[in-house]
Amino acid sequence: MSRPALARWLSQTNDVTQTFLAAGRIPGLINLAGGLPDPSVWPVDALAGYAQSAVADHPGDSLAYSPIDGLPGLRDVIAARFSRGDLKLGRENVMVTTGGMQALDLVGKVLLDQGDAIAAQSPAYLGALDAWMPRGPAYRPMRLDTNDVDIAGCMAGAKFAYTVPNFSNPSGRLVEADQRQELVAAAHDTGCWLVEDDPYGALYYDGDPLPRLLDLSAKGQGDGPYDGPVIYLGTLSKELAPGMRIGWVIAAPEMIVALTTAKQGSDMFTSGICQRMAQSALEDGLPEQVLPQIIDLYRARRDALCAAMAEHLGDLYDWDVPKGGMFVWAVAKDPRLNTDALMTRGLDHGVCISPSSVFDPEGKDHRATRLNFTLNPPEKLAEGVRRLAEATRAELASL
Amino acid sequence: MSRPALARWLSQTNDVTQTFLAAGRIPGLINLAGGLPDPSVWPVDALAGYAQSAVADHPGDSLAYSPIDGLPGLRDVIAARFSRGDLKLGRENVMVTTGGMQALDLVGKVLLDQGDAIAAQSPAYLGALDAWMPRGPAYRPMRLDTNDVDIAGCMAGAKFAYTVPNFSNPSGRLVEADQRQELVAAAHDTGCWLVEDDPYGALYYDGDPLPRLLDLSAKGQGDGPYDGPVIYLGTLSKELAPGMRIGWVIAAPEMIVALTTAKQGSDMFTSGICQRMAQSALEDGLPEQVLPQIIDLYRARRDALCAAMAEHLGDLYDWDVPKGGMFVWAVAKDPRLNTDALMTRGLDHGVCISPSSVFDPEGKDHRATRLNFTLNPPEKLAEGVRRLAEATRAELASL
Repeated sequence: MSRPALARWLSQTNDVTQTFLAAGRIPGLINLAGGLPDPSVWPVDALAGYAQSAVADHPGDSLAYSPIDGLPGLRDVIAARFSRGDLKLGRENVMVTTGGMQALDLVGKVLLDQGDAIAAQSPAYLGALDAWMPRGPAYRPMRLDTNDVDIAGCMAGAKFAYTVPNFSNPSGRLVEADQRQELVAAAHDTGCWLVEDDPYGALYYDGDPLPRLLDLSAKGQGDGPYDGPVIYLGTLSKELAPGMRIGWVIAAPEMIVALTTAKQGSDMFTSGICQRMAQSALEDGLPEQVLPQIIDLYRARRDALCAAMAEHLGDLYDWDVPKGGMFVWAVAKDPRLNTDALMTRGLDHGVCISPSSVFDPEGKDHRATRLNFTLNPPEKLAEGVRRLAEATRAELASL
Repeated sequence: MSRPALARWLSQTNDVTQTFLAAGRIPGLINLAGGLPDPSVWPVDALAGYAQSAVADHPGDSLAYSPIDGLPGLRDVIAARFSRGDLKLGRENVMVTTGGMQALDLVGKVLLDQGDAIAAQSPAYLGALDAWMPRGPAYRPMRLDTNDVDIAGCMAGAKFAYTVPNFSNPSGRLVEADQRQELVAAAHDTGCWLVEDDPYGALYYDGDPLPRLLDLSAKGQGDGPYDGPVIYLGTLSKELAPGMRIGWVIAAPEMIVALTTAKQGSDMFTSGICQRMAQSALEDGLPEQVLPQIIDLYRARRDALCAAMAEHLGDLYDWDVPKGGMFVWAVAKDPRLNTDALMTRGLDHGVCISPSSVFDPEGKDHRATRLNFTLNPPEKLAEGVRRLAEATRAELASL
């Protein structure tokens, strides 16, 4: 007998991930496509000590069934780290997730019925699109890199807005201060939830951090715990290590309750071992200890990538130098260039890039590419850019 | 402005979990309701060593972004543990999940569209019902404790059948050998996937283990890797510690590929730290080292609970003494007893029990209760049973 059909959403997935995986097996390939950290930045000794201590000294926290919403001590230390000024957070404002990715899945699970609308900063993080695809949402793209965007119009009637205000994946852009204000005002005015996904918020290489949407939305709030419309998503994957799978949500208590119900049926709770490690690392200020060297390393690599781009790609692409994060977004000058085709051709030239189509909910943007600068040392970045120029010229010549 | 409505499934959740949580704060309460291990069985020293070594000696495995489907070394050691006789497993038959709970979520995610049918062993694990609730499945109950069940009829046209053949949660029953054969035959005949959820398979206290559905379905299969209809779910939560959140799926390669796509959008991958710990523990045979003492401890507690039940509950309930697992399922002799009401009344008498309604997809079975014997020592089990008898008599007297 033939087997039953898979759920419908599985027929909509693309094969870009498979191309990436296959690319990993090509010898000598330079990978500008991913979003991986440099392993040299991981505080291995400190984390090994926390791992041992989590189990040996705190077996009740690390080995038992934990509360669904996270270890109370970890929730408290996160609440304390983010409380400042008008933003008053208690444990009831925080839940722990299995990486930032799970928070995206859970937000979709508690808010989306089939066909519901999401107002999404465009281009958008591929992982968020993956997380929500099974729920078949309708996307309203918000091009926050232009002034020609009706933010309140997009958000009215949507279940939530999705933004990465700091160094968006894939565009590398900052959402500017006035648009942050506008997003928060629209959330208050329309009632729409406002998701602030912030994995790169600690990775500012130039200038001072702009205010978080979470902080802006707490302005003038009373004395109680935060009850505003922002759903803030954080992670330790960039500052400590992705293998810990520790993320968190900060939101109004009613949203934390709903997300907790959703998490119960997803993975019940996040590893107590990793949660206890995270609690110790945050209590000791480990992120603050390691961030200066991460920032120095990645700033130098951004500069190396952008210098090589200026040398080799100036006639082929337009881009802005990002002030932080992990990516440069390059838009082809020639509108005929299709970066899906360029990805495949790039493999022949020994370089792997991400095509813009995967960051577009409608899959229609074929003109740009996302280049990562955190994984490779400067000389490899320069060689990768040289290969990309070669591949781009070959692709254009073939059209 | 008012906030948007939550997804519809959230309006269907019950408040039993909240009652449990509130019960945890009652001093002196004896908890027979949960399914918790005794913390004394955790191999704390060994796990602390593995935790330290995972990070210090294998940072590439433990701290990096891992493959979505799991660390290759862990998948290999799981494949090797389960391969025997006609069952030939390769890495492509195995994926790692964030606890057994996530496997249930992912199976639903890849197989269920709204309203699809599940043939479910009844009564059924509450966590599985939680996992699938957002997808609105139609349940076809299979009462495997009776001979009056048309297994093939239930499975024909269903997306999958769900079973816990070893010491089912909640009923504590074994699915007997002839019904195992019948389930596997029906899966082969109807094409329906057959989920074998096996958290308690190592917890046999009397007699030899019955064959797994996975093994039965591989009989006479050729030389290639397993390609049959069984989706086997395993976990380290009972043999090592739930806080590790390490589970796995063994299935046909096409199912592993679909589950991997689903996991990408759920939590991307399972903690590398916990995966590397699990790999070392399985390579060293840690479960085999600790199981004899777990089995001795839990067998004695089962005996203590059942002896107390014989003393105090013989005129009130019927039950079978389970040959393993963590639970006894007690069915009230008086059909008027409603165990939802009994749960609340039990709290007044200092005992917390699980009502049968939460294990029934339709919520209609009010006559039974699930009693756990692994968490409490014998004297507490006996006192809990005495209080339950008292609460039951009081409840019956009030009708």
